[in-house]
Parts: sequence; C-alpha cells; structure tokens
Amino acid sequence: MNRIVLASASPRRKELLEQIGLTFQVCCSTCEEKSQGSEPSSVVCELSRQKADDVWQKEWEDREGLLVIGADTVVSFRGKILGKPKDEKEACEMLSALSGNVHEVYTGVTFCYLKEGRKMSHTFYEKTEVVFYPMDKEEIEGYVATKDSMDKAGAYGIQGRCAAFIKEVRGDYNNVVGLPIGRLYQEMKECFGK
Amino acid sequence: MNRIVLASASPRRKELLEQIGLTFQVCCSTCEEKSQGSEPSSVVCELSRQKADDVWQKEWEDREGLLVIGADTVVSFRGKILGKPKDEKEACEMLSALSGNVHEVYTGVTFCYLKEGRKMSHTFYEKTEVVFYPMDKEEIEGYVATKDSMDKAGAYGIQGRCAAFIKEVRGDYNNVVGLPIGRLYQEMKECFGK
Repeated sequence: MNRIVLASASPRRKELLEQIGLTFQVCCSTCEEKSQGSEPSSVVCELSRQKADDVWQKEWEDREGLLVIGADTVVSFRGKILGKPKDEKEACEMLSALSGNVHEVYTGVTFCYLKEGRKMSHTFYEKTEVVFYPMDKEEIEGYVATKDSMDKAGAYGIQGRCAAFIKEVRGDYNNVVGLPIGRLYQEMKECFGK
Repeated sequence: MNRIVLASASPRRKELLEQIGLTFQVCCSTCEEKSQGSEPSSVVCELSRQKADDVWQKEWEDREGLLVIGADTVVSFRGKILGKPKDEKEACEMLSALSGNVHEVYTGVTFCYLKEGRKMSHTFYEKTEVVFYPMDKEEIEGYVATKDSMDKAGAYGIQGRCAAFIKEVRGDYNNVVGLPIGRLYQEMKECFGK
C-alpha cells in the first residue's frame, strides 16, 4: 500500500495510528451512518464499512495502492448500546449505570483496497471489557462538569480524568480509546505484509 | 493533604497524576534501591517504600499536611524479574521472551504522611497481565532500533510504538505505564477522603 486514508475525524484514532508509525491522510466520511442491527458487534462492523465505503467513493481518482480504514466504536451495557450523551443529564445517567459494573466496548474496522483491480473489503471487530470502580453522585457530577463526557460514547474517555475510576480492562486498551491498534497492525500484516 | 510530592523522576508517572487532576511537586529519591525479596510483589512494595521514605526524610522541614508518593514497577516473566535492558542485545532477548506470551507487570505504591503527629506508611501493589502477539526478528530489531526499549523495564513501553504488538491487557492499563492510577485514587480517597 502506498497511500493510507483514515476515514475518521476522531483525533484519538489519528493519534493511535501515528503512535505505531504509520503515514496517512485523514478524509472524513459524510454519509449518514445507519445500522439495521442491534448486536453491538454487527453494528460497529456495518458502520465502519459504511464510513470506509463512503471515503472509498470519494477517492475514485487514484485507487492504485490505496488503503482506506474506517472505524466505529460503541459502548454496550447489559445488551443496550450507549451512544454519545445528548446533554449532561444523560451523561450522568450513563455513568451511574456504568459505575461499579463491567461493560463492553466494541470497535469495528474496515479496510478497503484494490486486489488485482477488484475492490476488496475486509472487516473485523474487537471487544474489550471495562470494569468501573463505584462512583458516587459527587464524583459523577464532577467528572461530567469537566465536559470530557460530551463527545464520547458511554459518556467517558478512558484516557482522561476518568482513569481514576477504571478498575480493570480485559482486552485491547486502545480499542476503548477508539481503535484496536494491535489487531489492526496484525490484520494489515496479514493482508499486505509488513 | 495540602501538599503532594511524587518521589519519582518518571515523566510517565507525572503525566498520570496530572491526568486525574492532582496538583503536586516532584522530588526524586537518591537512595540506592535494594530489595531483599525475589517475589515481584514484595520487591515493588519494598522499593516504593524506600523511595517514599527517602523523600520523606528530605522533606523534614514541613511535614504537616504532606503526602509523599513512591512507586516502583517491574516486569515479571515466568517467575523472573526483567529490569531495564543494559544494551540493545539484551532488549532483543527480553522481547523475544515476551513475544507470543503473557507476562505480568507489578507496580508498588507507598504513601507517607502524618496522622496525629505520627508518620504513617501505607503500601499496596497492583498486578496487570499483558499478552503479546508473536513478534518476528525483524519486528523486534525494528522496535529496539527506535530506542524506546532502553529506559524501560521489560524493554518495551506499552504507550508507544509497541502498541502494535499488544494483544491484550488484563487489569489496570496505567499500571503497565508505571502507576495504577485508578487504585491510587481509590486508596487516597480511603486514607484522606476526597
């Protein structure tokens, strides 16, 4: 691959790709993301595919050696998908639910590339369990007041101040940040060599 | 507590304390750290205590409301403690051992503070398991060539380029970075309130 395009506006995903030394451009998808599914793993796979496909369409002029990477992350608690909170009240409700409990974070990733002139699409997902310490009302409100909740699925960012309330991670930590960078590298190696 | 002193020169520990919003100073211990033990959990507890005690001695002028935090991290693989590699050859050997396997990271933390005029010392440790994907010779040498290995126990930094080779974490991720920030916050709350 001689050109990599990340189909995501997330600064955290950009940082993770930079962290493992990849050179890439960013091109955000503008499609309306819609999933038919309700299973978190299917939803993130479908949405990552939609994002990658949308950017693949935009990059029609030069697809030789192009790899487009799409990704989508959701938080799931007791079978219910938690998206980004619409206001501080909802952020507090989400954190009250996660407090003292274990939940799952799913990230789906799609690669789009050409192989012998044909478009290939390769999708996978990673699941990570996250265990929260109990948070009391004051701690939840204090955290939400930092505004760190507002642009994040499940109303928290594991890499910020919320680290004080994370007891345990089981799986790829970076998957919770937004991109399973270990698995992504391994899948790239499998598809394209080193 | 009205003054917190981190007894560690590690920029990573400093970042983690800053991440949860604590205000503190840094004062490095200068004692020669020596452990009698061979059990990783005993070693990190003992060394964190030595570091905290050393800085506690230095801060003899004003101990009222003072909290000194000492910490020590080791990597353990099949019962053997891996320290910082002495050269690139040893870094490659360590990574060859960790490749495709699970190992443990231990961090010990000690708090020193006054309670009713008496010095109190509180020590705890966290253990995190880390699973590596298999790394081939080229990957190991490529990573060691980045120099990221040289100042780190076990010859890797989980927060750098090595993220490409981390399959799974089981426990506190930040414990592997050098400070179990979730547990530390909980222990502080327990000892001193919020």
